[in-house]
Amino acid sequence: MEKKITDVYAAADIGGTSVKLGLFSEKTELLKKWEIRTDRSQGGKNILPSLCSSLISTAGSLHIKGLGIGVPGAVNERSEVHGCVNLGWGYTDLRAEVKRLMPDTERLAFANDATAAALGELYFGAGKGYDSVCLMTLGTGVGGGFALRGRVINGAHGAAGEIGHIKINPFETVKCSCGGRGCLEQYASAEGLVRLAQNILALKEKGRQSRHRETLHIERLFNTDIPSDASPLEGMQSFSSRDICGLAKEGDPLCGCIMQLWGRCMGLAMSSIACSVDPRVFILGGGMSAAGELLTDCIAPYFREYAYPDCADTGILLADLGNDAGIYGCAALVSEGTI
Amino acid sequence: MEKKITDVYAAADIGGTSVKLGLFSEKTELLKKWEIRTDRSQGGKNILPSLCSSLISTAGSLHIKGLGIGVPGAVNERSEVHGCVNLGWGYTDLRAEVKRLMPDTERLAFANDATAAALGELYFGAGKGYDSVCLMTLGTGVGGGFALRGRVINGAHGAAGEIGHIKINPFETVKCSCGGRGCLEQYASAEGLVRLAQNILALKEKGRQSRHRETLHIERLFNTDIPSDASPLEGMQSFSSRDICGLAKEGDPLCGCIMQLWGRCMGLAMSSIACSVDPRVFILGGGMSAAGELLTDCIAPYFREYAYPDCADTGILLADLGNDAGIYGCAALVSEGTI
Repeated sequence: MEKKITDVYAAADIGGTSVKLGLFSEKTELLKKWEIRTDRSQGGKNILPSLCSSLISTAGSLHIKGLGIGVPGAVNERSEVHGCVNLGWGYTDLRAEVKRLMPDTERLAFANDATAAALGELYFGAGKGYDSVCLMTLGTGVGGGFALRGRVINGAHGAAGEIGHIKINPFETVKCSCGGRGCLEQYASAEGLVRLAQNILALKEKGRQSRHRETLHIERLFNTDIPSDASPLEGMQSFSSRDICGLAKEGDPLCGCIMQLWGRCMGLAMSSIACSVDPRVFILGGGMSAAGELLTDCIAPYFREYAYPDCADTGILLADLGNDAGIYGCAALVSEGTI
Repeated sequence: MEKKITDVYAAADIGGTSVKLGLFSEKTELLKKWEIRTDRSQGGKNILPSLCSSLISTAGSLHIKGLGIGVPGAVNERSEVHGCVNLGWGYTDLRAEVKRLMPDTERLAFANDATAAALGELYFGAGKGYDSVCLMTLGTGVGGGFALRGRVINGAHGAAGEIGHIKINPFETVKCSCGGRGCLEQYASAEGLVRLAQNILALKEKGRQSRHRETLHIERLFNTDIPSDASPLEGMQSFSSRDICGLAKEGDPLCGCIMQLWGRCMGLAMSSIACSVDPRVFILGGGMSAAGELLTDCIAPYFREYAYPDCADTGILLADLGNDAGIYGCAALVSEGTI
């Protein structure tokens, strides 16, 4: 006869569109997962109450011993958020609010969503068995998270893992969303990849003084060799990172060239991470990681070229848990004593 | 009556010229420190035996309960060194050798010397009271170490803290000692600073096609505005980083300009560290740190400019313990249970 489960851990991974929720056994086995809509109206004030009531009603007679919550923004050491644009939040004291909503839950923990996903991949996904991992989430932006010596790194300002803002090109003239210039995200996010492609296309039209040639240097400074073959990309009114990856996989030389440039940017940033905290593996997650081995294949040669020699064999893996990484990580935040 | 000390911790910080040794109380108070010469003859095979016998004879009737050793090279998770040029070592199994030499010492720990110094500064020096620190050692090269969440980060290959190899200029044409190009160390070490100065001097001689103009781009790409005033530096046959810092402090505009460029390079690399693991403070140590507040003053405005906004208030401090940071850190390696 199976042991009756009475204590459970709950996880909530808050995103701009939906909140992913999960209930886990004490051994961190996923018992149930579901989603609710993220209600961003009225400054997002319903988000925490609605996720807590959904958890409580789904748990029924089970006791929620711990709750881990992932937030799409920086969470500081005191579990405070100083504004989160994606949720419409201003200053939010997460611990105080959730304590009020779920007074019977003993353990509460909060983390940046990418940090939580890193932890999920570390303990239960592609990072299983490694004690130091850098997760890179490639989506609209580039985020990430670190787990080093088996513990998640939040950072003094909750900004650990904001690796999209590693500077890879100090000579960039276009501003990043963070206000800086030359951030990895400007080249390697889904949007950044499209921008790289637009610039390569503009460079291909020789002689034309395009805005992109004026403002973005990385393609020229790397002396990118642009294939002269006609590419389906040239005929498209607009295109996405998925289109570029798809065409590169089909063997289109222009998109292949764009992906090489993307791999170079990723390899550069990863080499700076490797010589700083020297993780055992990098794990690529986020929406773009659906492109699979194309990504690791494009990064690997450049990472090996740029990396400090001792780190050249650092693994580059694809995430395993997909969209569940966040809830696994949130559960790990409260179910593990040492995190 | 004072409690009689019978158990002590020992520390050995091995450098290319001398080995710094120390005995510490169980509360990690420094009881005695001294140095012995580093005997690099015969592939450095006498280094470990001579430091162990010096520790044993100095300890006398005291029992050495733990010994921490810092090594000027990468130490992996299994306490092995795969060659250390500065000591003449090939492959060395540190734990096995020291265990044989000091069989009565229960706790042995090994770390890279910069990592050990980071730990020393973290627990007993400028980092006291902070739980996450990035130490940057500025000397012939640029090294460093991280202590995050109160624990030292060695890295999967023992390469954590090799922050001299963060890439700040992907368009550099000159090779770094690591084989890469555009590493922080190429601009920010004592040698790097001299090289920056040589390039600025060459650029000042307008029209001359100097070798430096051909091979190093950073000064030109940053559009460095070179003061036209005559500088004592121009009359010197050769100069050191100390000369440059000294003249900058005396108000020489050319050296001031060189130090601004140096500060920009440091600020860039530090901004990439800040958005990766978000330490509470940076601590500047190593020989160059004797230049004092000149360094923090030159870095701060650039770091604030480049840093991810949440991290812009990260502290930039000067190391406190000077040459003793290493032995304090080695003692901490064995005296603290959680490191």
